Amino acid sequence: MGNMINIGVIGYGYWGPNLVRNFAEIPTAQVTKVSDFKPELLAKAQARYPTIQVTTDSRDIFKDPKIDAVVIATPVSTHFDLALAALQAGKHVLVEKPMTTSSEQAKRLIEEAEKRNLVLMVDHTFVYTGAVRKMHELITSKRLGDIYYYDSVRVNLGLFQHDVNVIWDLAVHDLSIMNYLLPSQPYAVSATGISHVPGEPENIAYLTLFFESNLIAHIHVNWLAPVKVRRTLIGGSQKMIVYDDLEPSEKVKIYDKGITVNGNSESVYQMLIGYRTGDMWSPQLDMTEALRTEGLHFINCIEQGSRPITDGEAGLRIVRILEAATESMRQRGQLVELNLAEVAV
Amino acid sequence: MGNMINIGVIGYGYWGPNLVRNFAEIPTAQVTKVSDFKPELLAKAQARYPTIQVTTDSRDIFKDPKIDAVVIATPVSTHFDLALAALQAGKHVLVEKPMTTSSEQAKRLIEEAEKRNLVLMVDHTFVYTGAVRKMHELITSKRLGDIYYYDSVRVNLGLFQHDVNVIWDLAVHDLSIMNYLLPSQPYAVSATGISHVPGEPENIAYLTLFFESNLIAHIHVNWLAPVKVRRTLIGGSQKMIVYDDLEPSEKVKIYDKGITVNGNSESVYQMLIGYRTGDMWSPQLDMTEALRTEGLHFINCIEQGSRPITDGEAGLRIVRILEAATESMRQRGQLVELNLAEVAV
Amino acid sequence: MGNMINIGVIGYGYWGPNLVRNFAEIPTAQVTKVSDFKPELLAKAQARYPTIQVTTDSRDIFKDPKIDAVVIATPVSTHFDLALAALQAGKHVLVEKPMTTSSEQAKRLIEEAEKRNLVLMVDHTFVYTGAVRKMHELITSKRLGDIYYYDSVRVNLGLFQHDVNVIWDLAVHDLSIMNYLLPSQPYAVSATGISHVPGEPENIAYLTLFFESNLIAHIHVNWLAPVKVRRTLIGGSQKMIVYDDLEPSEKVKIYDKGITVNGNSESVYQMLIGYRTGDMWSPQLDMTEALRTEGLHFINCIEQGSRPITDGEAGLRIVRILEAATESMRQRGQLVELNLAEVAV
Amino acid sequence: MGNMINIGVIGYGYWGPNLVRNFAEIPTAQVTKVSDFKPELLAKAQARYPTIQVTTDSRDIFKDPKIDAVVIATPVSTHFDLALAALQAGKHVLVEKPMTTSSEQAKRLIEEAEKRNLVLMVDHTFVYTGAVRKMHELITSKRLGDIYYYDSVRVNLGLFQHDVNVIWDLAVHDLSIMNYLLPSQPYAVSATGISHVPGEPENIAYLTLFFESNLIAHIHVNWLAPVKVRRTLIGGSQKMIVYDDLEPSEKVKIYDKGITVNGNSESVYQMLIGYRTGDMWSPQLDMTEALRTEGLHFINCIEQGSRPITDGEAGLRIVRILEAATESMRQRGQLVELNLAEVAV
Repeated sequence: MGNMINIGVIGYGYWGPNLVRNFAEIPTAQVTKVSDFKPELLAKAQARYPTIQVTTDSRDIFKDPKIDAVVIATPVSTHFDLALAALQAGKHVLVEKPMTTSSEQAKRLIEEAEKRNLVLMVDHTFVYTGAVRKMHELITSKRLGDIYYYDSVRVNLGLFQHDVNVIWDLAVHDLSIMNYLLPSQPYAVSATGISHVPGEPENIAYLTLFFESNLIAHIHVNWLAPVKVRRTLIGGSQKMIVYDDLEPSEKVKIYDKGITVNGNSESVYQMLIGYRTGDMWSPQLDMTEALRTEGLHFINCIEQGSRPITDGEAGLRIVRILEAATESMRQRGQLVELNLAEVAV
Repeated sequence: MGNMINIGVIGYGYWGPNLVRNFAEIPTAQVTKVSDFKPELLAKAQARYPTIQVTTDSRDIFKDPKIDAVVIATPVSTHFDLALAALQAGKHVLVEKPMTTSSEQAKRLIEEAEKRNLVLMVDHTFVYTGAVRKMHELITSKRLGDIYYYDSVRVNLGLFQHDVNVIWDLAVHDLSIMNYLLPSQPYAVSATGISHVPGEPENIAYLTLFFESNLIAHIHVNWLAPVKVRRTLIGGSQKMIVYDDLEPSEKVKIYDKGITVNGNSESVYQMLIGYRTGDMWSPQLDMTEALRTEGLHFINCIEQGSRPITDGEAGLRIVRILEAATESMRQRGQLVELNLAEVAV
Repeated sequence: MGNMINIGVIGYGYWGPNLVRNFAEIPTAQVTKVSDFKPELLAKAQARYPTIQVTTDSRDIFKDPKIDAVVIATPVSTHFDLALAALQAGKHVLVEKPMTTSSEQAKRLIEEAEKRNLVLMVDHTFVYTGAVRKMHELITSKRLGDIYYYDSVRVNLGLFQHDVNVIWDLAVHDLSIMNYLLPSQPYAVSATGISHVPGEPENIAYLTLFFESNLIAHIHVNWLAPVKVRRTLIGGSQKMIVYDDLEPSEKVKIYDKGITVNGNSESVYQMLIGYRTGDMWSPQLDMTEALRTEGLHFINCIEQGSRPITDGEAGLRIVRILEAATESMRQRGQLVELNLAEVAV
Repeated sequence: MGNMINIGVIGYGYWGPNLVRNFAEIPTAQVTKVSDFKPELLAKAQARYPTIQVTTDSRDIFKDPKIDAVVIATPVSTHFDLALAALQAGKHVLVEKPMTTSSEQAKRLIEEAEKRNLVLMVDHTFVYTGAVRKMHELITSKRLGDIYYYDSVRVNLGLFQHDVNVIWDLAVHDLSIMNYLLPSQPYAVSATGISHVPGEPENIAYLTLFFESNLIAHIHVNWLAPVKVRRTLIGGSQKMIVYDDLEPSEKVKIYDKGITVNGNSESVYQMLIGYRTGDMWSPQLDMTEALRTEGLHFINCIEQGSRPITDGEAGLRIVRILEAATESMRQRGQLVELNLAEVAV
């Protein structure tokens, strides 16, 4: 198996088993080592995959010369140190989202990966779903026309995190989808939110993102909702999308609805607005598990020396928005500039 | 019919016919005159109600000594002048929402009504629905515990207004419901939004309202959505509500869901959070048409000399929030203080 | 108004007002007389339409030489006598569904209308909705391929009738839609059902209709259901339809789903069955009120001397099925032949 | 581990792995042997559970003296021979549904188990779900009053079976739930259905079950539907249930809706029927995996020598109905008596 990519996975808690399972099923890759500081989790990995080596010390992975790539599925506070150590050991890296706890850290990882010519990829899983890839195809082929707004709701009775607020936990999904789908980058954010448990991070938050064009984006996240909602509206000048991730099959619906605007020279203040309602269409989606598509993409980037869709720059942009949104939220909606062009390496 | 309340209705466009129909069916009231500047609308009123007098001049209503009360269903820009004239003519007033185009105007009307001891009521129709009254009962009886958040979405492909933005057109409904349901008043607003038609008012907007307690409110309104949504989440410490106005019968659902927080003296930063999920319950609602309940309430307030639920002060509070939200939106989320205590007369 | 069609309406209870309103708005028709044996209903008609003459005696309509056509909106037990009298008086007739209480009566009316060269139309309202017309277009243009099944559910907590069972009250709608949509006629029916109130007609029923081809139809009707359901599945060899009349806008959804069958000469017992799932599509529907479309069609048939879509023959076929289904139900599913070709005049 | 129940599992295809996983997690049971005639499936079992012995010959299980109980998860045509051999070898048996291909076979197994004092249980999985157990509690405690009807729909684009028709594949679920929930047994069945693939079993079917009381049951099953539906309506004189198995959390909704009947001595033909609509309530359900609850019940019955809820008699009743329904269907709805009392051993 000379051309096999050997993978070490750090973290076998909630998400790690999914990563191991998917990489185990990719023909040109194999997971050779798993580390976790909890022995009982390693025992599970061992029982499931008898041929995989396990260790409580992640350094065993960095030191292993046979390992080509490291997958990091640990809490966000550890991402930077682990990813940096992996890159410095010459390993390609796939790291969980959010990439790091600060944009400074994210930049440092990007620099390290570029210097060493290594693949640095962030696990923005949703980007690899059939639904998001279909919407990307529709948007980039201009089927929606100009994009007017992106509005997403991601709420449920969710686990309250102690170390990160709800923006870092939930909005990161919406931001990574939005970053992939939209044709331009936001320049500023205004966010509001609140904590309902004294001393704990905010459990409900609202983010508005401003763009140079007449595009606006808004994200609502909440750990304390009675019902689960995963719904995104994307408004375009030609068509509009409703993306409901909880729908079992018709996750993406495209509406031939909108307005038509006729300028009127005599009255510039009173545009003639026409309303258009037409058919709705819900395309068949590729139902391949997103992590499989993503794993294949990571392996392919390593093999080809190419740049992943969700590369370090994408990870950095998301981290910068999370950072700025948290700052804005603590100032009750105060606009915070993102300077995404500047933060880029 | 000595004790009959005689009513004049100004405006027979979209909403006027509903008002006339409902007042016509109240035993102790009768609509005696209808004015509109469009003769074709008056012809409709006449055909429908042969005994009602019609006029293109609203002054005929103010001058008519037999008329006790005036109902104003005209565009918002005309509310102040018409309501003031009616009050000055000694008539009780029921005016469409939003009450006026500025809080200054609203205060002026309140003063005029108080000086003359007349009923001044604002047509916040939703307050009189079975759904909102049931939620009011649940909240005031503390069945929900402390209120944590109020989150409302009101979007559809709606008529673009030329004279008011989407906040004045749609958020006014949510604000009037919220004002009735919540136990306290917000102190500031942060709003964002955008127009997608050059020179026209904003067609999409997001409002966050801040309260002294750990309560937060958010309203999303949009004239350019592919689907119609009318959904409010109300989170309490004991129970949570989903209010979906588009549900044909189960509009209000109460979830016995939430978190329980146990302070921990050793680690004030790490609260122990428990999760609670229990039954859901959807109460039978009074299905009486809201306008009928509201009309009876108006007539009753006139007869008893009592203050309406949706009085001028309620109307003023809503107008003040609309004013401040528009200001905040134009400054991209800049916090604007509401000073509701000060604006009150 | 020389070419105006003058209409007399018999019955101003539940449905009559809708008929009067729609005919009143058709440019080439006018309602000149309304009869009902309840004076209070006539008073309502008079108040609403001051120019219409009212009478408690339907014979005043038959005798009126200016009346061209009679619309009958009375209980089904009176349809035959009224329609026959109208035809014998030389009037065109539009009669509520079900057309009559027996197929014998229906045949008699058809004969009378043919003899006198008058239009005889049955008010199968659903046939004139945008949803049903769109499905008709899809089915007749072979977009669905061969039709495999027609399955309809029409249940809710509905008014228990004393004079007719739930088949005559509710299944009549499904049968009239089915009769319009399907390419062939059923040859037999097997029905089951029960009454939950001693001495009263059956309030729940299930009908299976058999066709010569491998098409099957089934209708479930129930007056005692906790929720309202109006849903039809139509399976074709190429595409399948879900028609949900309670959906506010997307009433008709077309699924590119189905099976493909490959005969296999070596094993005639084991066909190779492939599964196909593709896009879903929900066409924009004409939202014109069905009664308006129907009213225009009736007037047009009178003017052109043409045969209506829902003619007497269509009415007869439905009555024959209702008759046979009731007979089968009382024999607990015993197959009853329909002999639709024979019953036809 | 002296009191451990040792289990052999026959069949490791679709359902077998779920059975093995659940029994593996029961503290007082262990799966010691798995058989399947496909070596590749045994390899999977072995990889997953290294301590389990595997064999391609089911007789190795019957011969193993350490094995106390046999779980049979093979195609229905093999159930009888395998279960009989297991019982004759002195093993307790849990067999997949449908229990056998004929009621004669089912009776033979019951006799064998009784003679040997062994537990014979049928895997009617749904009976062990939180939803069905909650409904059972509501019905047996008379919260619904008298049961008027049971109406179930189970349709989707499902795998066409070559050896059994859709009744044996899908209606078996509804019949097992119904058998558990309803207070009495049906006496006859009328069924209709059709095959859309020449030479293949029926893929769409409708069953009506008749009871001595004024209860009626109906089941609609279809392998060729464009959408998945799993919905049961249960009407009672006091309350009514909607059970939707596809709802993620609110699977059971109880409606305080119905009719009240007042007999009227003067007019026995015209009962006074009142309509009642009240609250809806959706109880919190036990979300334990049904197979775990069922596995614990099987082990407990072995330990206690007690009779399972879904015993051989329950399995026999379902098989008898499947048999009779197929017969009725092939005679286009002809009533077939069930003689459930007679068929019982």
